[in-house]
Amino acid sequence: MNFLENVEALMAKNKTLLCVGLDPDPRQIPKEFLQKSKPFFEFNKVIVEATKDLVCAYKPQIAYYSAIGAEDELAETIRYIRKLNIPVILDSKRGDIGDTATMYAKEAFERYAADALTVNPYMGGDTLQPYLKYAEKGVIVLCKTSNAGSGDLQDLPMNSAGSPLLYEIVAQKAAREWNQNKNVMLVVGATHTDALLKIRGIVGDMTLLVPGVGAQGGDLKAVLKAGLNSKRKGLIVNSSRGILYAGSENVAASAQAAALKVVTEMREFL
Amino acid sequence: MNFLENVEALMAKNKTLLCVGLDPDPRQIPKEFLQKSKPFFEFNKVIVEATKDLVCAYKPQIAYYSAIGAEDELAETIRYIRKLNIPVILDSKRGDIGDTATMYAKEAFERYAADALTVNPYMGGDTLQPYLKYAEKGVIVLCKTSNAGSGDLQDLPMNSAGSPLLYEIVAQKAAREWNQNKNVMLVVGATHTDALLKIRGIVGDMTLLVPGVGAQGGDLKAVLKAGLNSKRKGLIVNSSRGILYAGSENVAASAQAAALKVVTEMREFL
Repeated sequence: MNFLENVEALMAKNKTLLCVGLDPDPRQIPKEFLQKSKPFFEFNKVIVEATKDLVCAYKPQIAYYSAIGAEDELAETIRYIRKLNIPVILDSKRGDIGDTATMYAKEAFERYAADALTVNPYMGGDTLQPYLKYAEKGVIVLCKTSNAGSGDLQDLPMNSAGSPLLYEIVAQKAAREWNQNKNVMLVVGATHTDALLKIRGIVGDMTLLVPGVGAQGGDLKAVLKAGLNSKRKGLIVNSSRGILYAGSENVAASAQAAALKVVTEMREFL
Repeated sequence: MNFLENVEALMAKNKTLLCVGLDPDPRQIPKEFLQKSKPFFEFNKVIVEATKDLVCAYKPQIAYYSAIGAEDELAETIRYIRKLNIPVILDSKRGDIGDTATMYAKEAFERYAADALTVNPYMGGDTLQPYLKYAEKGVIVLCKTSNAGSGDLQDLPMNSAGSPLLYEIVAQKAAREWNQNKNVMLVVGATHTDALLKIRGIVGDMTLLVPGVGAQGGDLKAVLKAGLNSKRKGLIVNSSRGILYAGSENVAASAQAAALKVVTEMREFL
């Protein structure tokens, strides 16, 4: 199974669109974990065991690991999840010229054996080819991001009439030029449901990764209304802090309850 | 001294604008190094010792290290260079929302103690703030990149009249909005001297990092004519493969000769 088939199989089996972001922050992880020799891995393991029947993927954000040299714990986390046959999206937002992109692809898909990664389109289509060549892997391109300043470039109009906006051009290129191997997806922030609606109109049934539900304030119902594709799928909805740090007393039970709350809301739409 | 002061001091002392990119590729490094326990570090050390009086900075590209888990060799390379009082640009092209960008800033400036890093502007100005806060560090923003497909997004016109192009907007924002701490610079590929000329017109004396001379085919003379600022400085001209792999028989002598050839050409303009 390729990445997307694996995701869709879990969407069906677990009746979910939820992806849990594994962004272990030493300032927020309960102290009991920080005393262990592999605090991030041990914390992630508890989160994964508590939520594994409620997700279609996990998404570790590599910066949290590389900031403190915890690459080994990232690798161990990914191995642990893949043994459960759950796909892993490495959130790395890479972007560089060909030879270097080849190295980043090697990092994500060979060193870590991730099933998908996130990439940045600013440098152009040729810089995405080294990732796209891994046809069984998912290549998830930033389109309209969830942060407040995302409009600085992404919302710039491409002509005097006021449209298309830059992110719409990215969506067009993703659907028409970059998707030869049927492994392209897009990142669209949950905080911009108007953009989500427009992007859905451009890309047909393409799967979208939607961060920003939970701590960032995105409205799940509005996301599902605007973003589901014609098969009532096509969205991987990520929550990180809202689930990881739902409670510090009993991490597992709190994370599971927070995940179940999100998934229950999703199930009304599936 | 902050990053730029350190770079400019070396530009004056060594009469150079050259930055050597440390992108160790196992397919191109002579076999004698690959047999050592720290092949990348040992190779870099030879290159640095051969070129240290000819450069104003070194620029390791992190992907070459992270592709194979050689973070320790990257850290050791950076420590070695900084002991020589030569600034290090970590070429990582990071870009992510605030909390994550804070982690990437920590990776570059605290874990590796780099003096500058490269970043991607696609996600907007707020995502650059975590780097910009390190006022003594350099934050080098992708503007017009050296690759063939750089025009896919960067050359898109923002209105029907055909200008400004997206990369010009990035240059404007860099100069007018993001440079509060006087630590912003831009990446402009040597393969686009027309863009270099336009960007110089927008950003005044701002320092530009120019990759693409050497293996990528950029013309050094044309770069210097188009890009030098009013003080006959303002360009950090990077060459990687053209120097690292100038000769496999005697790595040190070949690298030194290749660097000297570039620097001699530069000195006509300084």
